[in-house]
Amino acid sequence: MSDRRPVSTESAEFCTPCLVLDLHAIRERYEEFGHALPGADLFYAVKANPDPRLVAFLVGLGARFDVASRPELELCLAAGAQPADISYGSTVKKERDIAFAHRSGVRRFAVDSAAELAKIARCAPGAEVFARVSCVGTGSCFPLEGKFGCAPAAPAAAASLLVDAAAAGLGAAGVSFHVGSQQLDPGAWRAGIADAAEVFRRVRARGLRPYLLDLGGGFPAHYDAHVRPLADYGDAIRDAVAAEFGDDRPDLMIEPGRGLVADAGTLYSEVVLVSDRDGAAGPRWVYLDVGRFGGLAETEGVLVRYPIRTARDGGPRSPVVLAGPTCDSADVLYRRRPYLLPDDLCAGDVVRLLHTGAYTASYSSVGFNGFAPLRCVCTGDPADGSGMSVRAANVAV
Amino acid sequence: MSDRRPVSTESAEFCTPCLVLDLHAIRERYEEFGHALPGADLFYAVKANPDPRLVAFLVGLGARFDVASRPELELCLAAGAQPADISYGSTVKKERDIAFAHRSGVRRFAVDSAAELAKIARCAPGAEVFARVSCVGTGSCFPLEGKFGCAPAAPAAAASLLVDAAAAGLGAAGVSFHVGSQQLDPGAWRAGIADAAEVFRRVRARGLRPYLLDLGGGFPAHYDAHVRPLADYGDAIRDAVAAEFGDDRPDLMIEPGRGLVADAGTLYSEVVLVSDRDGAAGPRWVYLDVGRFGGLAETEGVLVRYPIRTARDGGPRSPVVLAGPTCDSADVLYRRRPYLLPDDLCAGDVVRLLHTGAYTASYSSVGFNGFAPLRCVCTGDPADGSGMSVRAANVAV
Repeated sequence: MSDRRPVSTESAEFCTPCLVLDLHAIRERYEEFGHALPGADLFYAVKANPDPRLVAFLVGLGARFDVASRPELELCLAAGAQPADISYGSTVKKERDIAFAHRSGVRRFAVDSAAELAKIARCAPGAEVFARVSCVGTGSCFPLEGKFGCAPAAPAAAASLLVDAAAAGLGAAGVSFHVGSQQLDPGAWRAGIADAAEVFRRVRARGLRPYLLDLGGGFPAHYDAHVRPLADYGDAIRDAVAAEFGDDRPDLMIEPGRGLVADAGTLYSEVVLVSDRDGAAGPRWVYLDVGRFGGLAETEGVLVRYPIRTARDGGPRSPVVLAGPTCDSADVLYRRRPYLLPDDLCAGDVVRLLHTGAYTASYSSVGFNGFAPLRCVCTGDPADGSGMSVRAANVAV
Repeated sequence: MSDRRPVSTESAEFCTPCLVLDLHAIRERYEEFGHALPGADLFYAVKANPDPRLVAFLVGLGARFDVASRPELELCLAAGAQPADISYGSTVKKERDIAFAHRSGVRRFAVDSAAELAKIARCAPGAEVFARVSCVGTGSCFPLEGKFGCAPAAPAAAASLLVDAAAAGLGAAGVSFHVGSQQLDPGAWRAGIADAAEVFRRVRARGLRPYLLDLGGGFPAHYDAHVRPLADYGDAIRDAVAAEFGDDRPDLMIEPGRGLVADAGTLYSEVVLVSDRDGAAGPRWVYLDVGRFGGLAETEGVLVRYPIRTARDGGPRSPVVLAGPTCDSADVLYRRRPYLLPDDLCAGDVVRLLHTGAYTASYSSVGFNGFAPLRCVCTGDPADGSGMSVRAANVAV
């Protein structure tokens, strides 16, 4: 990223906080997914970063889209996505939103309960559904088990849902699962693939022809150096599919969000105050103009630790506690494991938080303590020379 | 609240989620503060709920305002507040925001560090400052210690800041502290008042004339029946001020946010799905159209437990797990202590979450998973018959 830094932070007009998303890096990562899992359809999980320009860029690359709501669906349609390339992946939908999606041409819906299936049968006749099975999120920073997925006795329950779907006139497309976000273990997909194969066997025995295996998301960002390359994930997944499905391989679908866009984001923030408030013995406190409520919600519990760069890097460093600008005591980013930052860092300096492209702007509060939501600026799109226009976009505060 | 319910949830046009704020109830609570602490100036902590109409209503009542940022300051000015009635209570401010406030006529600023004091001396010449001392938040649901306030050796550090302020040409107005939000112990203010008195003694010994004691916020909402009446807080505070300051009583200032507006709010939400996803043995899961990211952030850790009402109350009830509508596993509201809700509750029903006027809409995400931020509608202002207009306001989705 640093070689392609598109924004001059020296500029007086530069306005922080601001998330800069490098579309060139996203294109490279998109292609990396294609190499790691050839033939799998990539449905971008829009919730990770719903920036309209990013979505339009992904439409141009040929991506498909996993949406969680009607507004996300409308966003994708407005960006040029075809309804057939959109999967309504939430298992919790209002009937009128299902009906809207169906009217718009969306044909693929997730279910994990009989009550949701009944809604789809009523509001989206002729659509296809995939049944989500619960998946233990071991190895993930953000497990998703417990809230989503048929459970307990997942394969039996999912098979039953698919049989009921067919009886209700819907297509029984297949199975989905999610190994948990920021999954560090490439082997974590294996159990879900085995469960899915069991569901396939059960519904085939009832005469149905499921064809779709949705492997979900969970592909990790590179917050630290221990994250393994995407190819390792592809290999582990292909091996597991071959072992569980043999020659009768289903169509594969993946839903990366964080794994596609996080690494391409750099969040620029200004230091508002450096204070020795714990006395000479304690770490300095560094207050930034962005914090827990302005986009850095995932710093909670220190699960995500963004690398931080400053223009003063290279000299002596000492521990600091990082905090956000609000009058809320929860707005402390890293306290248990203080960062080492330059001794001469001072108010007015700009710091860069790396790998911040996902679950930052979209988590931002609408204006807690009056601070505006985190802006997102896209750059690096060779089609329009956007790298040149970022400065201008930042002028308007 | 229920007797004055201004919105017909039976109406087909009713649009959830929606926070309805009863201005009549806020007026009553405002007067209750006046009775509990006669003579204390009430500065509303805008961060609790920055709805412009609420702020304008409070201007009309004669309230003053505690702001955390330039946008909150601009909001208050736009609502008709006088700059002299605005306190810039954040101890973490950008120089250009201090300068803006000073140009706008604001004269009162908080400090808890030498670095912040230097900024105010540069950007707000002639203004007055009050020094914030750290305060142990025992008894509070949301302690604020650790992030704010001079510490350690708080009285000595605060006195030193005030002396330095005077030397820099600023007014050394006095002292503030904060006992932590949703403070359940009326005696919690005593230690801060004692610290403040010690600061006053120290700076008076240096020839200065501090006059202001800012008692902060912390006054609780009535999430459950165990919250004591406001009069108990007033009595405890008056006793402590008399004991610590004797006849040389400072001017008192309070900064209620939650304590002024929380009880006046009712959040209307639609049930999106009721699912037996844990099987017949487990509790039902009830998914609402509002959750952790749409305004109910304070449900985390079960510290705030909103009472919930439905149109089906009165019949058999059983435990449910409440969850929000997003595809995020953290979006579960109450799991450890399930709610009892009616057995026949079903998708499409509207539920009412009570005492939700504070730290809900302002905590809402800008659109996580595509869901729009929580709307806030004010009603109950006899000046304009707004109780009649809520229905119309809800028609536009």
